[in-house]
Amino acid sequence: MFKNLWRQRVQLVEADLIRELHATNSLDEKLVQAMEYSLMAGGKRLRPILLMAAADACGTAGEKFITVADALEMIHTYSLIHDDLPAMDNDDYRRGKLTNHKVFGEAMAIIAGDALLTLAFEVVLRQKDVPPEILLNVLREISTAAGAAGMVGGQAIDLRSEGVQIDFATLKRMHAGKTGALFRAAIRSGALLAQADEKILDALTRYAEAFGLAFQITDDILDVTGDAAVLGKATGSDIKNAKSTYVSLTSLEAARNFAREAVEAAVDALKIFGTEADFLRELVTFLTAREK
Amino acid sequence: MFKNLWRQRVQLVEADLIRELHATNSLDEKLVQAMEYSLMAGGKRLRPILLMAAADACGTAGEKFITVADALEMIHTYSLIHDDLPAMDNDDYRRGKLTNHKVFGEAMAIIAGDALLTLAFEVVLRQKDVPPEILLNVLREISTAAGAAGMVGGQAIDLRSEGVQIDFATLKRMHAGKTGALFRAAIRSGALLAQADEKILDALTRYAEAFGLAFQITDDILDVTGDAAVLGKATGSDIKNAKSTYVSLTSLEAARNFAREAVEAAVDALKIFGTEADFLRELVTFLTAREK
Repeated sequence: MFKNLWRQRVQLVEADLIRELHATNSLDEKLVQAMEYSLMAGGKRLRPILLMAAADACGTAGEKFITVADALEMIHTYSLIHDDLPAMDNDDYRRGKLTNHKVFGEAMAIIAGDALLTLAFEVVLRQKDVPPEILLNVLREISTAAGAAGMVGGQAIDLRSEGVQIDFATLKRMHAGKTGALFRAAIRSGALLAQADEKILDALTRYAEAFGLAFQITDDILDVTGDAAVLGKATGSDIKNAKSTYVSLTSLEAARNFAREAVEAAVDALKIFGTEADFLRELVTFLTAREK
Repeated sequence: MFKNLWRQRVQLVEADLIRELHATNSLDEKLVQAMEYSLMAGGKRLRPILLMAAADACGTAGEKFITVADALEMIHTYSLIHDDLPAMDNDDYRRGKLTNHKVFGEAMAIIAGDALLTLAFEVVLRQKDVPPEILLNVLREISTAAGAAGMVGGQAIDLRSEGVQIDFATLKRMHAGKTGALFRAAIRSGALLAQADEKILDALTRYAEAFGLAFQITDDILDVTGDAAVLGKATGSDIKNAKSTYVSLTSLEAARNFAREAVEAAVDALKIFGTEADFLRELVTFLTAREK
């Protein structure tokens, strides 16, 4: 049930992503190809899935807000393209495929990322059947989460921490920005779109923050214990790049304990919900037990 | 009068830009420094000026919409930072100062651009005293103009035209995207914010398109005839980079004629306005006679 719904919605999102991409009248065909290459490179589509699941938990079928959900995936994709650039992480592979700049060249990869970020906002504005004030609040949520106070801010900390021993508080701040902010925005956007009240919004926000933490710690663990073939990317890259992680700053065992606590906190945040939040409960458990 | 109002508004915009930048709670101080470095590097602030002048022409004092005007300057600035990158135009100087990546490094320049683009949308959402539906329309206008159908699309054509002889139609499409789209969005946003009717919006759109053309042709002419010290950047770069321009595809004299015709078309588009559009009339004339 849980996995079926996930798979179903991933298919919906992927079909919709490609539709929204081509609904923009690009001046250059190659640019669209570069955007599409990374946008359709697979992945868990977690941010759209989270947005829809949050709306479900608030009593509105998440599919209704698929357009905003698409936008979050576009922002995530642009960030991966830029992250992989030679000047950044300099990665040749992502999800088992060549990275964008390896295929389209560095310049095109930079502007394909720029275009995807811009398209994300264009796409949010295409969301139907949502009152204007609510759409503006969702845009506020997403733009704040994606920028210097969120995702890009986290990337900046990451950039400046390479080869440097950072403290635990900085590590948490980095991840709260780099990955946490967009997860949080996905979940809060789902709740805002479903017009949830403050109490429900607060509960889902607490879930989102614990979820982000659990996800990131698991990511750090997998970089040590994971199978490169299953992950579709090289393991050990954190050690190679001398990056501080939940594992390197504590231990594998301590990191596993942190992950477990975060899952508990996420599930606890959902205690005011009934079965309508089952997907969110299963998702956090599943993701921390994942192998990729 | 014309130059005084311009100077006055540039000061207003610059003070406001810095305020809006620091109103975002960035996770990393260096990131804000990199954003501020390029945002406050001077320039004509043409896009904010155009937005405000368009609002004036519609009978609402342009200052009222300075927040949206700021956003356009942020988008323009991000595009310059990314354009200057080694993988793109590889420029060391911009407006007589070192380019962003020369000061902050390539990785930080990439994400400072990303953060400025994201901030632009955050900042539009801070605009006060505008009905939600209108703000959504303005966001539609800006996001479409900044992305694959506009500015980034034009950059993609530019990228793919280097060292290649392109035809005149492609050149026009490239500039309509690369510089024209954001000018157009600035002027149309000013009109939308001032709640202009269709007829006025159409007239200003025609002005905007002619303005963009006149501006770009002048830019191409200055790259041949200009004084590097006055321009604050190297001249002859189009020839050096084998870029097709209005001059290279025709002649200096023909380009000057095109510029003159575009100015006439811009002024003609304003014939339904009285003195409230004088600034726009003087602006296009002034800019085509400029030396930098």
